Amino acid sequence: MRQSLLFSKSRHNFPRDEVANNAKMLIRAGFVNKELAGIYSYLPLGLLVLNRISDLVRREMNNLGAQEILMPTIQNPQIWKETGRWDNLDVWFKSKINAGGDIGLGWTHEENVINIMKNNISSYRDLPVAIFQIQNKFRNEERAKSGLMRGREFLMKDLYSFHLNEEDLDDYYEKVAHSYRLIFDKLGLGDITYQTVASGGLFAKWSHEFQTLCPSGEDQIYISEKRRLAINSEVYNQNTLTEFGLKAEELLSRSSCEVGNIFKLKTRFSEPLGLYYSDQGGENKVVQMGCFGIGISRLLGVIAEVFSDEKGLSWPEVVAPFLVHLLILGEDKEMTFLAEGFYQKAQKAGISVLLDDRKESAGQKLSTADLLGMPYRAIVSKNTAGRISLKSRKSDKEEIFSVDSLINYLSDIKSKLC
Amino acid sequence: MRQSLLFSKSRHNFPRDEVANNAKMLIRAGFVNKELAGIYSYLPLGLLVLNRISDLVRREMNNLGAQEILMPTIQNPQIWKETGRWDNLDVWFKSKINAGGDIGLGWTHEENVINIMKNNISSYRDLPVAIFQIQNKFRNEERAKSGLMRGREFLMKDLYSFHLNEEDLDDYYEKVAHSYRLIFDKLGLGDITYQTVASGGLFAKWSHEFQTLCPSGEDQIYISEKRRLAINSEVYNQNTLTEFGLKAEELLSRSSCEVGNIFKLKTRFSEPLGLYYSDQGGENKVVQMGCFGIGISRLLGVIAEVFSDEKGLSWPEVVAPFLVHLLILGEDKEMTFLAEGFYQKAQKAGISVLLDDRKESAGQKLSTADLLGMPYRAIVSKNTAGRISLKSRKSDKEEIFSVDSLINYLSDIKSKLC
Repeated sequence: MRQSLLFSKSRHNFPRDEVANNAKMLIRAGFVNKELAGIYSYLPLGLLVLNRISDLVRREMNNLGAQEILMPTIQNPQIWKETGRWDNLDVWFKSKINAGGDIGLGWTHEENVINIMKNNISSYRDLPVAIFQIQNKFRNEERAKSGLMRGREFLMKDLYSFHLNEEDLDDYYEKVAHSYRLIFDKLGLGDITYQTVASGGLFAKWSHEFQTLCPSGEDQIYISEKRRLAINSEVYNQNTLTEFGLKAEELLSRSSCEVGNIFKLKTRFSEPLGLYYSDQGGENKVVQMGCFGIGISRLLGVIAEVFSDEKGLSWPEVVAPFLVHLLILGEDKEMTFLAEGFYQKAQKAGISVLLDDRKESAGQKLSTADLLGMPYRAIVSKNTAGRISLKSRKSDKEEIFSVDSLINYLSDIKSKLC
Repeated sequence: MRQSLLFSKSRHNFPRDEVANNAKMLIRAGFVNKELAGIYSYLPLGLLVLNRISDLVRREMNNLGAQEILMPTIQNPQIWKETGRWDNLDVWFKSKINAGGDIGLGWTHEENVINIMKNNISSYRDLPVAIFQIQNKFRNEERAKSGLMRGREFLMKDLYSFHLNEEDLDDYYEKVAHSYRLIFDKLGLGDITYQTVASGGLFAKWSHEFQTLCPSGEDQIYISEKRRLAINSEVYNQNTLTEFGLKAEELLSRSSCEVGNIFKLKTRFSEPLGLYYSDQGGENKVVQMGCFGIGISRLLGVIAEVFSDEKGLSWPEVVAPFLVHLLILGEDKEMTFLAEGFYQKAQKAGISVLLDDRKESAGQKLSTADLLGMPYRAIVSKNTAGRISLKSRKSDKEEIFSVDSLINYLSDIKSKLC
């Protein structure tokens, strides 16, 4: 894309009430626009990252054999009353239909997905089955000061699984845990993301969260580097340590952000809503369920925050809006011709390039490139003498390429991305 | 995809309160699930169609040079008060933030997009620019009895354009009108969709709707076949006829459904919200705006309805969930081997196939295929003698192919789809 056409501008100022570092940088770089506390618009570059995160997660859900659906935001109170989650929770945004009747905005979708499955599960032959969606959630958070890391409106991937019995649920739970580790590895967060023991609620002893180390994270975890395991501070006590064979002195206390969670719901919701199947002997049994979340827009905030430096953002290749930011420094015709030639060839090779063709100073272009944070910065200037210099956002080392050798070099990088 | 794995089942019964033909069929075929009046979940097959319609529309928006963003559902009342659209409209779903403050659910996004553009337009150099999103809208409709054709929550593409002056807006308006005709042509609706003169509101004399003929449509239009033009009944009078050079006796009155609209907003919203630019002389001027909608989920309903017959749905190739529905009639091993071989080859060739590998009777499979409505039905049975018979959903004529010749035949069809 030509940067001269990109409407979203980087800014020096940002909303004064914005305290979260991730949101500050994403606003300054023109990736998002703040609308209200915890509520953001995604501008072209931000939407590209959001979509790449979604696509990566979607591929892994498909690999798990899960089928994609899309449930509505507007929720029918009736099904939430049956599970007791309509009246006693202040997480809801509620409203009314003019023609009569209350509604709520979906903050999770267990009740809704069970309502759907009651039409589609009747026999043991219909199980197991897994369903996911990538959809907005609405939560009436008391505080929303962590930018994209805690939104009142946010994008989430939620996967629901349905099983004949607890053993099958247990097996699938481990498969999803493995898939989640793969996802965070692919996002470049594997090294700083810990599978973390957390409360299982009223119906299971434990659940697991995936917590990414992040200085501004709202959670506190105790990590065992050796075991690649952590304990959420909420369940950190001697009993927990004993159960998992951990010693307090081996653990490090760290701030973190919950990017995923996996949960054995068992029959907590399927029973009150009457989701039954008939087994091989014709007997009616309650369906066992699991649920598995990943915060898509939260990951945008976490990735922005953990990979940035004082100059700005620094996107992992796999989710970057563009692989290359190509700057033309100067207004010489030969330089423009060279840059345009590279830009055309790159597009043909499927290499995404943001071409800074604006009439700005070299200093302005260089600092914008650091702020926007594409993985590679390419420069055409008088100094490059008919060739192109390339530098990774993460290093200071520049290398000089001819157009064709640079296309080959970047094609190699691109082919390694999933 | 293997139909034995598809969780969504076709049903013989459907919600008794559902009166709209499009929703009845989509529910019976397992494409959607009804949650409340005017509120549906999209199941795997329905979501595939919805995504294909979105993708087709998105490509044309990109061709118009528009940049994609995503604005939130939750709206800040402040900006809507400035245009006078917060208090005097009952279309809103409103709610409250627990920490204090009202919110509304976006039923359109002019105020929001202007709020964004105030950070990004300052000079004549920033214009013209066009922005679109594909996003859920929420409207507190008094009646929601037309299925997917009038949802309380529905998916819409909304495009907003920003211009230096009215002439540039007028030019862009014609470009969008042309793009819309292309979209409806590609969807197979071109012949029954009329650009329709409608009211321009308080700030323009006319706007245009794109109305698709549909017996259960809620609108009434007067069409001139010869001119490929229609007049909405709301503005149908002698003055209108005179202005457009039409005679009452040449026009046919028809029921229709509004699938798109294009509107010159001029300065109706940009002025109260203070969206200015400085022109070449340094003078401050108000930005001229246009807005252009297409109902994505409404199109799903319209396409379901206008192309169906008494046996069920019949999808145009360009939006069908799968191009081919392959039925194995019988449980012979050789037949299964043949069908699996075709299925594998088709996947490699990028031809999407739904393989009915269920243990059901031939009659059941044949009627399900008609209900689900893939463009082509392929059959492997004893009668096809080691080959495959192919029939279009729209005709009764069957043709027999070898596996390889069928792959070639379908590859040709696929390559012609955009």
